Amino acid sequence: MQNKIRIGVCGYGNLGRGVESEIGKFPDMELAAVFTRRSPAGSLKIDSDAPVVSAGDAPEWKNKIDVMILCGGSAHDLPSQGPAFAKDFNTVDSFDTHANIPEYLNSMDDAARSGKNVAVISAGWDPGIFSLMRLYMGAFLPEGETYSFWGKGVSQGHSGAIRGLEGVAGAVQYSIPNEAAIESIRKGERPKLSVREKHKRLCYVAIEEGADRDKIESKIKNMPNYFAEYDTTVNFVSLEELQRNHAALPHGGNVLRSAVSGAQNNQLLEFSLRLDSNPEMTSSVLLAFARAAHRLSQRGESGARTVFDIPPALLSFAPAADAVRDLM
Amino acid sequence: MQNKIRIGVCGYGNLGRGVESEIGKFPDMELAAVFTRRSPAGSLKIDSDAPVVSAGDAPEWKNKIDVMILCGGSAHDLPSQGPAFAKDFNTVDSFDTHANIPEYLNSMDDAARSGKNVAVISAGWDPGIFSLMRLYMGAFLPEGETYSFWGKGVSQGHSGAIRGLEGVAGAVQYSIPNEAAIESIRKGERPKLSVREKHKRLCYVAIEEGADRDKIESKIKNMPNYFAEYDTTVNFVSLEELQRNHAALPHGGNVLRSAVSGAQNNQLLEFSLRLDSNPEMTSSVLLAFARAAHRLSQRGESGARTVFDIPPALLSFAPAADAVRDLM
Repeated sequence: MQNKIRIGVCGYGNLGRGVESEIGKFPDMELAAVFTRRSPAGSLKIDSDAPVVSAGDAPEWKNKIDVMILCGGSAHDLPSQGPAFAKDFNTVDSFDTHANIPEYLNSMDDAARSGKNVAVISAGWDPGIFSLMRLYMGAFLPEGETYSFWGKGVSQGHSGAIRGLEGVAGAVQYSIPNEAAIESIRKGERPKLSVREKHKRLCYVAIEEGADRDKIESKIKNMPNYFAEYDTTVNFVSLEELQRNHAALPHGGNVLRSAVSGAQNNQLLEFSLRLDSNPEMTSSVLLAFARAAHRLSQRGESGARTVFDIPPALLSFAPAADAVRDLM
Repeated sequence: MQNKIRIGVCGYGNLGRGVESEIGKFPDMELAAVFTRRSPAGSLKIDSDAPVVSAGDAPEWKNKIDVMILCGGSAHDLPSQGPAFAKDFNTVDSFDTHANIPEYLNSMDDAARSGKNVAVISAGWDPGIFSLMRLYMGAFLPEGETYSFWGKGVSQGHSGAIRGLEGVAGAVQYSIPNEAAIESIRKGERPKLSVREKHKRLCYVAIEEGADRDKIESKIKNMPNYFAEYDTTVNFVSLEELQRNHAALPHGGNVLRSAVSGAQNNQLLEFSLRLDSNPEMTSSVLLAFARAAHRLSQRGESGARTVFDIPPALLSFAPAADAVRDLM
């Protein structure tokens, strides 16, 4: 029996808790420690009996962690946390600010090379699984259109943007894909779809006593990048109803490619996911890529990698010959 | 502008014609020659103006072909043709006798290593794309069940098995998946399904004058491995109707994984394809893997590879940085 891959978790929000919850399903892995910026670290209570360590003491764990899973946020945590950890550890993260991925990849590559580590970035479900699908589908059917839809599901970024408004006590935002557009693509049409035509936004908002509903609704609907470009519905509910009916974190999505082969044959590829728990899915994907990061590191490789660089076999628990026999 | 990847096609059935039809959609590739076992080779007329060469003269083309796409059948052609060509050329094929893939992989590996070539095997849509999906889905969600369904579509193997019977003038067989079973999986159930519960078989058969319908129907329905394990319907039609209504080669299929995360969250992943032309899809996938074979060979690698071994980035026409920027 080989030693298990020793996983460190940095950050204990939804994602860190997801890794803790899912790691038991990965027979070759164990949770070695949870790293936190809380002070004192001991004030963080976690569900498992893994040690809780101050993030500042992480370098002391260099030889006790095989792969560090970075569970911080893409806006404020990962741009600095990522390179800092990649100097000392193999890392995996789900950095998801799409426009900044090339820059983040470069800075992670420098850090990982300097520490002779492997850093797998943006390895959740989008970016991550959906990225893989977009690449494969486009390679397999070069003449066509690729579409990505998200939802129905809770967008944590959009929910947070509402919660940041003055007078808002709580908020949950659902992204809702345009099912009619998806159906038209499935029929072999290749529509040009504006941002507004692809998704709607549905918000449940609890406000503080005395706050101005109309003003809050208008601020939400006109928020650039988040809501202004969409048809947005705002429902005001009590904080209690919000917690009772909107506490779960379901999500879903579809990637479709509608292409032509021969003179006029329609070829359609579609990938979809339907998730009761968005963070548990992302966590589980991160663990699969942590396995690949460990294997690449064992081979002596170093530097940053995206999901595009990783041979699928490296993700599988099954030995290569078994995967060929059983999954091919 | 780099030189185009020079593609050879060996065998000019549905698949070889598909490669010829699809290669124009791959901007970095060109059809260098079609190889045939017909004698004389010149008796084969093809749609493009590529040279037609006798398969026996293939070794003379060693330095004029970058990747040879082997379009022969898995039962009789590839087991000998594959290793013979892999000694002289980088190859790609869609070997699809699932049970024999490990053995074929070994013999292709020996041949490809001896010639310092790269041989990518079983790179169609099943095995091929579906294999990738089964592996990825299982790696991403370790605790669950994976299901593969095929159809509705024409199974060329099953159609051929009927055509081999005495008294049969023509036959087309459709594999039909059990939609109710697929729906139950989508709902988060994880049913145990027998072979009979997953697919039905629907046959259109034209018989020769004077042939015994009842005897032919019974022979079809009791044919082991092909039909005996399934609910099979046989419709007798005229040869003319067969050619008019059943000449197309549509196909489709689904891979689903229904899994649990956390204590009891259902997580569902699904991949599907809906194809007007089955052989054009397979051909297009073969071309994408031919690009990867060429790139691996350029790196100095040799030996046989499955789709599990190939970093997705190698399939994409886009340079790596563009793929990260545009597809991630």
